[in-house]
Amino acid sequence: MFRLTSLLLAGFLYLVSAGGAAAAGPQVSEDSQTCLECHQSVTPGIVADWRASAHAKTTPAAALAKPELQRRVSAARPPKGLEDLAVGCAECHVRRADKHAEAWDHQGFTVHLAPGPDDCAACHPQEGRQYARNIMSHAYGNLKNNPLFTTLTDEVNAPRTFENNGLRRGAVHLLTDGESCYSCHGTKLVMKGMKARETSQGEMEFPVLQGWPNAGVGRMNTDGSKGSCSSCHPRHRFSLKVARSPYTCSQCHKGPDVPAYKIYQVSKHGNIHQAQGKDWDFEAVPWTVGKDFAAPTCAACHASLVVNGDGEVLAKRTHQFNDRLDTRLFGTIYAHAHPVSPDTTVLKAPDGLPLPASLDGRPAAQGLIGKEEQARRRAAMRAVCHGCHGGGLIQGHFESLDHTTRASNAQVKTVTALMSRAWETGLAKGPAQGASPFDEYIERIWCEQWLFHANSVRLAAAMLGSDYGVFDQGRWDLTRGMQRIFEKLKKSKK
Amino acid sequence: MFRLTSLLLAGFLYLVSAGGAAAAGPQVSEDSQTCLECHQSVTPGIVADWRASAHAKTTPAAALAKPELQRRVSAARPPKGLEDLAVGCAECHVRRADKHAEAWDHQGFTVHLAPGPDDCAACHPQEGRQYARNIMSHAYGNLKNNPLFTTLTDEVNAPRTFENNGLRRGAVHLLTDGESCYSCHGTKLVMKGMKARETSQGEMEFPVLQGWPNAGVGRMNTDGSKGSCSSCHPRHRFSLKVARSPYTCSQCHKGPDVPAYKIYQVSKHGNIHQAQGKDWDFEAVPWTVGKDFAAPTCAACHASLVVNGDGEVLAKRTHQFNDRLDTRLFGTIYAHAHPVSPDTTVLKAPDGLPLPASLDGRPAAQGLIGKEEQARRRAAMRAVCHGCHGGGLIQGHFESLDHTTRASNAQVKTVTALMSRAWETGLAKGPAQGASPFDEYIERIWCEQWLFHANSVRLAAAMLGSDYGVFDQGRWDLTRGMQRIFEKLKKSKK
Amino acid sequence: MFRLTSLLLAGFLYLVSAGGAAAAGPQVSEDSQTCLECHQSVTPGIVADWRASAHAKTTPAAALAKPELQRRVSAARPPKGLEDLAVGCAECHVRRADKHAEAWDHQGFTVHLAPGPDDCAACHPQEGRQYARNIMSHAYGNLKNNPLFTTLTDEVNAPRTFENNGLRRGAVHLLTDGESCYSCHGTKLVMKGMKARETSQGEMEFPVLQGWPNAGVGRMNTDGSKGSCSSCHPRHRFSLKVARSPYTCSQCHKGPDVPAYKIYQVSKHGNIHQAQGKDWDFEAVPWTVGKDFAAPTCAACHASLVVNGDGEVLAKRTHQFNDRLDTRLFGTIYAHAHPVSPDTTVLKAPDGLPLPASLDGRPAAQGLIGKEEQARRRAAMRAVCHGCHGGGLIQGHFESLDHTTRASNAQVKTVTALMSRAWETGLAKGPAQGASPFDEYIERIWCEQWLFHANSVRLAAAMLGSDYGVFDQGRWDLTRGMQRIFEKLKKSKK
Repeated sequence: MFRLTSLLLAGFLYLVSAGGAAAAGPQVSEDSQTCLECHQSVTPGIVADWRASAHAKTTPAAALAKPELQRRVSAARPPKGLEDLAVGCAECHVRRADKHAEAWDHQGFTVHLAPGPDDCAACHPQEGRQYARNIMSHAYGNLKNNPLFTTLTDEVNAPRTFENNGLRRGAVHLLTDGESCYSCHGTKLVMKGMKARETSQGEMEFPVLQGWPNAGVGRMNTDGSKGSCSSCHPRHRFSLKVARSPYTCSQCHKGPDVPAYKIYQVSKHGNIHQAQGKDWDFEAVPWTVGKDFAAPTCAACHASLVVNGDGEVLAKRTHQFNDRLDTRLFGTIYAHAHPVSPDTTVLKAPDGLPLPASLDGRPAAQGLIGKEEQARRRAAMRAVCHGCHGGGLIQGHFESLDHTTRASNAQVKTVTALMSRAWETGLAKGPAQGASPFDEYIERIWCEQWLFHANSVRLAAAMLGSDYGVFDQGRWDLTRGMQRIFEKLKKSKK
Repeated sequence: MFRLTSLLLAGFLYLVSAGGAAAAGPQVSEDSQTCLECHQSVTPGIVADWRASAHAKTTPAAALAKPELQRRVSAARPPKGLEDLAVGCAECHVRRADKHAEAWDHQGFTVHLAPGPDDCAACHPQEGRQYARNIMSHAYGNLKNNPLFTTLTDEVNAPRTFENNGLRRGAVHLLTDGESCYSCHGTKLVMKGMKARETSQGEMEFPVLQGWPNAGVGRMNTDGSKGSCSSCHPRHRFSLKVARSPYTCSQCHKGPDVPAYKIYQVSKHGNIHQAQGKDWDFEAVPWTVGKDFAAPTCAACHASLVVNGDGEVLAKRTHQFNDRLDTRLFGTIYAHAHPVSPDTTVLKAPDGLPLPASLDGRPAAQGLIGKEEQARRRAAMRAVCHGCHGGGLIQGHFESLDHTTRASNAQVKTVTALMSRAWETGLAKGPAQGASPFDEYIERIWCEQWLFHANSVRLAAAMLGSDYGVFDQGRWDLTRGMQRIFEKLKKSKK
Repeated sequence: MFRLTSLLLAGFLYLVSAGGAAAAGPQVSEDSQTCLECHQSVTPGIVADWRASAHAKTTPAAALAKPELQRRVSAARPPKGLEDLAVGCAECHVRRADKHAEAWDHQGFTVHLAPGPDDCAACHPQEGRQYARNIMSHAYGNLKNNPLFTTLTDEVNAPRTFENNGLRRGAVHLLTDGESCYSCHGTKLVMKGMKARETSQGEMEFPVLQGWPNAGVGRMNTDGSKGSCSSCHPRHRFSLKVARSPYTCSQCHKGPDVPAYKIYQVSKHGNIHQAQGKDWDFEAVPWTVGKDFAAPTCAACHASLVVNGDGEVLAKRTHQFNDRLDTRLFGTIYAHAHPVSPDTTVLKAPDGLPLPASLDGRPAAQGLIGKEEQARRRAAMRAVCHGCHGGGLIQGHFESLDHTTRASNAQVKTVTALMSRAWETGLAKGPAQGASPFDEYIERIWCEQWLFHANSVRLAAAMLGSDYGVFDQGRWDLTRGMQRIFEKLKKSKK
């Protein structure tokens, strides 16, 4: 009887403490507490978001004490002095402020605006290292420092005026670039000085940070780090559920240049996720196939730590998203073996272009991963497929994908041969004539064949996207555009 | 044993009363009760929907007795005689039947088919007044009574026959208009007499109501009111959750002419809503940022009463959806300050066109709101942003949006200059030649630059739509189309 | 005290049995148990899926013992010997292995890879018979055995090379077809022999099955059956929720050729489903309008057994999806009365083409259902509409749809007359010149008018798709394309 009473009492006390959960969570540092006091009325939404986050509910020490497969932190030991504190405002926005050029004196603290991977690395160093090998972390430079790609982005973004019967191109404004290509690729943050602004607390000084706001995957931060963890783990809840949901990927992978999200949605995997996903556990670590989820999202195949029901690892967590991908299906003119370095500006094609393959499709001799590494990566992906599928199905799937990769490359080669002929015959002016290969109308049609349609065909093959391989920017459009260029060429010869 | 019996009896009584739950809600008027008796078997779905609605679960008097911020009604006092009744069938379909031309004698009641804002105004007068100032309430007339826009809709909707080597345009059928432009803009309801029809209850007479069914935002009702509350609050549950979900807006805001929904979906706001929204409280009034929802839907920014955790109002409820918008980003050739009157047929551009800006971009001198009102509206929107974001981020966002608004207008000016040149040189026949500016193929390309691509670029800037500003009907398409018209012009001169 | 202990003990026992729930379900056959023992670690996801399925939780005998309207099986009696067993691995993959050419000896069992409708028919014979009358079950042959359609698919899928100033078409690879048109239509499965493969259990032999994997609706199975139930009831949960969710249909009905899903999503029905659907009961049989769901999904209108609150049947379950459809709105050049036979290769148009209507729109005299059957099917659909809507609304809706069907057919007739003229004048080479009608650029534009735009206009009319009837592949595109062909024709005459 005594014991029963004790149990009931314990239960009662538990309920009481659960009711006051916020107060009962881990200790918040004095600095963060000061931030919270103002910001919970100045910007209440993000404070509420943070309170719902793991950062507010656990401590680095507690997170590290978990069994290895359940850990969401990867530091060898907790950051000194932060072991038993919640990860609050100051821990991310103040701790490394001296490294950030935009840091400024704000209410007695030196605060910086835009934390990057190196700030998060205090607790998540492995993720930081993996992401640094992710081609996405170099998305800014891979575009900005490739003269060919810059020609393309300038053609897309430059303002035109109609003057003297000609279309005059003006300079591209930084803000236009920031909303266009660099919205996903990431902007370069540059500290431009301070400016006073009226606030609810009276006038205050704030930094003028060029390129801000932006959460592109390759954002160049003022501390020299590359990327924004907030791209996929949006501040300030840093929810695993958001990162593992396909929606977060749709932000940059839905357009005709990379319709991965649209293709996923119509795939059987996507169908099942949409119908049943609301009952899945998107917060479980590790992520158990069949128990926590019944069909993969983007994260399951490309990033997450996936285990089977016995807790055996099917796939290790990776933030280098091509770690399970042997072939790069989009992003340049031809599909090709993934580059060794995430910095793709080092690539040089046989014809001298700064590309992984020359205009006629020959791959860069150096800089691309070899057959052995390709096999390793495919095996890593196949292990995920095996979570549900037998070997025969997986085999058949990849044979078909490989065939399509080769076949779509061949189609692009044909359409590029047509374009090259147009340049030779003077129907259009290309690089050989000292002109942009991306400004004339026929050149745009050519671009759409490889930049849109061949990509769509390949991604549809990779993820079972039915109509995206046919009528929705697929083979219909690829052969239609090819025929169109061909007819223009034929007509111009008459 | 006695106790057990009591428990069983109590359980039984509970089950009985639960089975008759409807009876336990507020009293239903005798008239509505009569309607329900037949309609719960004739059209069971809408009866069930109504039973789940606030209209069935509360009374005007009880709704008005709530603290002001929690109220969902705005009348000074409850409608006479309806104070303590549920708002049932008769209260909406019979009460004001004398005002509706389509009202007819049905089973002993004079019933009307299509309630409009003036019917709802009995309890929601403030919402009615706000909506009457909403440009959407004039969506029918703004299209139908603008000769330029009617030329456009006729070109889109007119049937063609191929006769004597020419394409002959026929008259546009009302039903075609009703399924096309006026599906969203709203049809004009016109009573055309009665007709007998077989029903499950035998033959009955019903009104023939031209323009019905339709729930367009500017529907012209037979009582003289404009709009259909059911557009966003679909009958008969009138769910706040539906109205606050972005899906309801997608009905009319997803096409290339106004891709707002698609852009929202790929924005970080949309990503978070899709991943986490199922756990949010879409029925709470007022709507508390951080507690009830973690990222805005369309309604949060453009309509809802939003408060912070302390219950302080960040934004007042409005049914005039440009109340927090300084600039109109889509709908005409150029972006411009919002019109003062929701009736945009009163606008006259400097060049005499019935538009907010002339073909060369000069805004109508009169009829557009001034800088002061623009500043007030932007401040109202910024207050919503502040629910989560600091001032620097908000400042940066709007600087970029303003730049894009100006830049996209400049691009449209260039492409329109090209089109004007084509009209001058005879490449196409335009208004100066007494011809439609919307029928020839080159004119359609011109239209797509401002009607689709410039809109997409601006909306992507406003809501962070990444690829909708670039490759998906964005800058890629804008510069592609411009180049195309330019090349046609150049070629025609040879 | 004694009673309390008993209660605690009961609770404990309950927890224990719940923990071992799988064991408490129906008996699993010894064969299936053997499969499960390996496969729960080899392919854990599908085993978990199956454990969550009705197949694991009930037996044929128990399923048949339910009241008729609640039954999800339709056999007169349970399959012999399986009456009281769960429907496990062996029951579907071993029982009829002798009928499947790909069956092979696997761990002591003769197993086949790809069950089809005839396997499921052991318990679901009525569904099998209905599906055999579904045009979808003939999707493979209707494409493959129609010479005109094969010309089209070959034009879309054939690889091209640029040789001697010409575009040379190569043969279409089976794998390309399988990822393109036949991804939805279904491939033909052909047993090609055995091949050894390394597995986690050592080397084993597996069948090489041409056309696999594929789950197209008209898959030609090696047992002679047509279709894959897994298309809509994906293995191995066979979830009613998935089949009744619109997402499953999006897999093949989202592209511009048949944008039904996109149109549904922006319809008021789709808006409501997206906002509220997570609270609906997608597993209830029968499906009660107003109680289990508040707005129809694809299944509600086209397939499910729908009842009203009194349990009266509004619509019988059907797996012949045109059972409630009088007119076929897409798939060929003109909308037309549905074909009598699901095998559409038997149709012959007045002009001799293997189509339901000739190029000038005259319907095939034979092979299409008559007015009486059309009326019966429309009445069946109207009964579903009556679940929520009054007769006037339904009447108005169908009048508008019928008008649009006629009007869009007339538009297609005009655009086809233009194309025919182009063939006559030599602007293009068509069938009369012994050439493909689908290869030249102008022919592709012609195709898009009927294959994309007219379809979109009709489906938008049928399901209230607003912008899909106007600017998003609707009337804007239809009249734009028509004008374009007309101008090409006019220009070629000069």
